[in-house]
Amino acid sequence: MNLTNTKIVLKRRPNPEVLEDLFDKITDTVRELNEEEFLVEVSYVSIDPAMRGWISTVGNYSEPVAFNEPMRSFGVGKIISTKNIKFEVGDFVVGWLGWQKYSIVKPKNIQMKIPENDVPLSANLGVLGLNGITAHAGLLDICKPNKGDTVVVTTAAGSVGSAVGQIAKIFDCKTIGITSSNEKKFFCLNEFKYDHVINYNEIKDISSELKKIAPQGIDCFFDNVGGEQFDAIMENININARVVVCGTIGMPSHPIPNGPRINRTLLVKRARIQGLLILDYFNKYSEIYNELLDWYKKGKLNNKEDISHGIETAPKSLVKLLNGSNLGKQLVKV
Amino acid sequence: MNLTNTKIVLKRRPNPEVLEDLFDKITDTVRELNEEEFLVEVSYVSIDPAMRGWISTVGNYSEPVAFNEPMRSFGVGKIISTKNIKFEVGDFVVGWLGWQKYSIVKPKNIQMKIPENDVPLSANLGVLGLNGITAHAGLLDICKPNKGDTVVVTTAAGSVGSAVGQIAKIFDCKTIGITSSNEKKFFCLNEFKYDHVINYNEIKDISSELKKIAPQGIDCFFDNVGGEQFDAIMENININARVVVCGTIGMPSHPIPNGPRINRTLLVKRARIQGLLILDYFNKYSEIYNELLDWYKKGKLNNKEDISHGIETAPKSLVKLLNGSNLGKQLVKV
Repeated sequence: MNLTNTKIVLKRRPNPEVLEDLFDKITDTVRELNEEEFLVEVSYVSIDPAMRGWISTVGNYSEPVAFNEPMRSFGVGKIISTKNIKFEVGDFVVGWLGWQKYSIVKPKNIQMKIPENDVPLSANLGVLGLNGITAHAGLLDICKPNKGDTVVVTTAAGSVGSAVGQIAKIFDCKTIGITSSNEKKFFCLNEFKYDHVINYNEIKDISSELKKIAPQGIDCFFDNVGGEQFDAIMENININARVVVCGTIGMPSHPIPNGPRINRTLLVKRARIQGLLILDYFNKYSEIYNELLDWYKKGKLNNKEDISHGIETAPKSLVKLLNGSNLGKQLVKV
Repeated sequence: MNLTNTKIVLKRRPNPEVLEDLFDKITDTVRELNEEEFLVEVSYVSIDPAMRGWISTVGNYSEPVAFNEPMRSFGVGKIISTKNIKFEVGDFVVGWLGWQKYSIVKPKNIQMKIPENDVPLSANLGVLGLNGITAHAGLLDICKPNKGDTVVVTTAAGSVGSAVGQIAKIFDCKTIGITSSNEKKFFCLNEFKYDHVINYNEIKDISSELKKIAPQGIDCFFDNVGGEQFDAIMENININARVVVCGTIGMPSHPIPNGPRINRTLLVKRARIQGLLILDYFNKYSEIYNELLDWYKKGKLNNKEDISHGIETAPKSLVKLLNGSNLGKQLVKV
C-alpha cells in the first residue's frame, strides 16, 4: 500500500494556555508493517481534558507527548492491514491511535477489539469508552454508593460527569450536577436525568445552595474540577463520605495553588479522598465495557456527542473543550 | 458507702489556648447507684491531644464537654460497688471514667473488662489502650502496609505514633518518624526502633531530608499533625500511597488555614487520604486489644509512660502534652 498519512503533531508546550497553534499538521507516507503490528484506519479520535496534562512537562502520570509525534489520543478504527494473527483485517478496535488518519499499532496500544454490535462506532469513545469506564471505576470501585446516597458530580454535563450522573441513577442515588451554563443545566436535567443541577455561573454560593437542595449532606463526590467548587462541596460532605479526584480542570497544575486545608474535615467526617487514574483499570476494560453496553442497550445510558469533521480540526476542538463550550462528548471524525 | 469524690471539671473554653485554669477542682459525695450502674475507683486517667477538640465548641465529632462535669477522659479502675450483674466487684475496666477519683458508670461507658493478666494496669491506657487501638486501626485497616513498604509517622514519639512505628516494624516495614527534639529522636530510635528519625526543629527541610533517607518514596503516611509537616511528606508519596489523618495538632482547628491544594498530587499518585476516628472501631476493641497484648507479651511493643500523681495534676499534664514536653504516654495516677 502507498498510503498518505495526515498527522497532527505537537510543536510547542502550553505556556500555560492550550492554543491551537501548539500543534501542526504534517503528512507522510505510511511505512511497512513490522511483525506483530497492524494498520488501523482511524474513524474517530477522542478529545479529552487530560490532554492538557499530557502535553505539559509538569510532573504527571505519563511521559509528556513528544514533539513531532502524533498527539496522544484514544480513537476507534478498522484494521486494514495486519502482521498479527490475533488482529484481522476488518476488526474494529479502540485504543491509543493518536491524532492521525492511519495508525500503526501493536497489541499493547489497543484496549479492546470492539465486539460486533449495532452500537454507533463513536459511542465506543464516549459513554462506552474511556469516559464511561472512568465514571464506572471511580463511582463504583472508589465511591461505592449505597442506594439512596446523595452523589455530587462536577463538570456534570461533560462526558465523564454525565456518565457518573447516569450510573448513579442506575444505583438509585440522588444526583446533583454542577455545570457552567443554563444550556448545560437543561441538558443535564433532560438528557442525563440529574435530580438537581447548579449552574455555578448563576449561583455563586454553591455551598449554601447544596445545603438547601441536599440538607441530608453528600455521601459521594466525583470531582473533575478542584479549586473553589471542591471547597464548597467538601463543606457539605457526610460522615464516611467518599470523594474521587478524577480531574483538576478548575485549578492550575503549576505552581500548586493554596486552598483551605482539608485535614480537619477528613478527620471529623472520617471521609476518604482518592485519586483516580483510568490507566489503573485497563485490566478490567472489557468487563466494565460489557456492563456499560448492557445499560446502554436498555436505554439507561444516554451518549451525547459534539463532533467536528476532519483530523485538522482536532486542536480547535481541544481548545473548545477546555473552554467548556462543547455540549456532549467532544470527538473528531477523521 | 459515704465516699468523697474529687473531680476536675471544665469552667471555661479555650480561647484558643488550652490553659490549666480552664479547669477547676471540686469535691462532692458519691451518690447512690441506680440499677445497671456500678462504681469504679479510678486508678489512672489518660491525657490525650484530642481533648483540645473535646473542650472546644467548634464543629467536631462529639458533643463539647459540658461545664461543671468531670473532664471527659479514658481511664482504668476497679469496680468497688455494683448494681449490674455483668460487672462484679473486683473487676478491672477500661472506658470513659473522666477526670475523677470515683466514677459511676453504665456498661455503655466501658470499652472492656480487663482480662486477668500480668500486664501493668496503666498499659491498658497506652499501647494496649486507645492509643494502641488507634495505631492498629489506622495502620492496618486503612494504610494496609505491605512488607517492605516505607511508613512515615508524625508525632513519632507520641503514644499513638510510637505504636504505629512499632506495629509497622512488626509488618516488616521501613519506618521513619518525625519528632520535635533530639531527646525524643533518641527515644524513637532506641525504644521504638524507628529506622530513621527526623527532628523537625533541627532539620527544617523535611521534604529534602525524606528524599535522602527514603529515595524510594513513601507508601504509608500516618499523620497526627497536618500543616507544613503534612505538606513536606505529601511531596514524597508514592503511587498508590495511603495516608491516614488521625490528628491535626500542628494546625489551628478554626478558622481553617490555607495550604497547598493536594488534588493534583492525589490524582497523579492515585493516592488515598482518609480520616480516622477511633470511635468507629470500638466494636473491634477487644479483638485488636488481644492482638496488641500478644505482641506486647512477646516484647514487640514497648510501652513508655510519663505519669503525674494526683487527679489535680491532670490539667497541668494536658498543657504539658499539648506543648509536646512529655516523653511517653501521658497519664495521671489518681
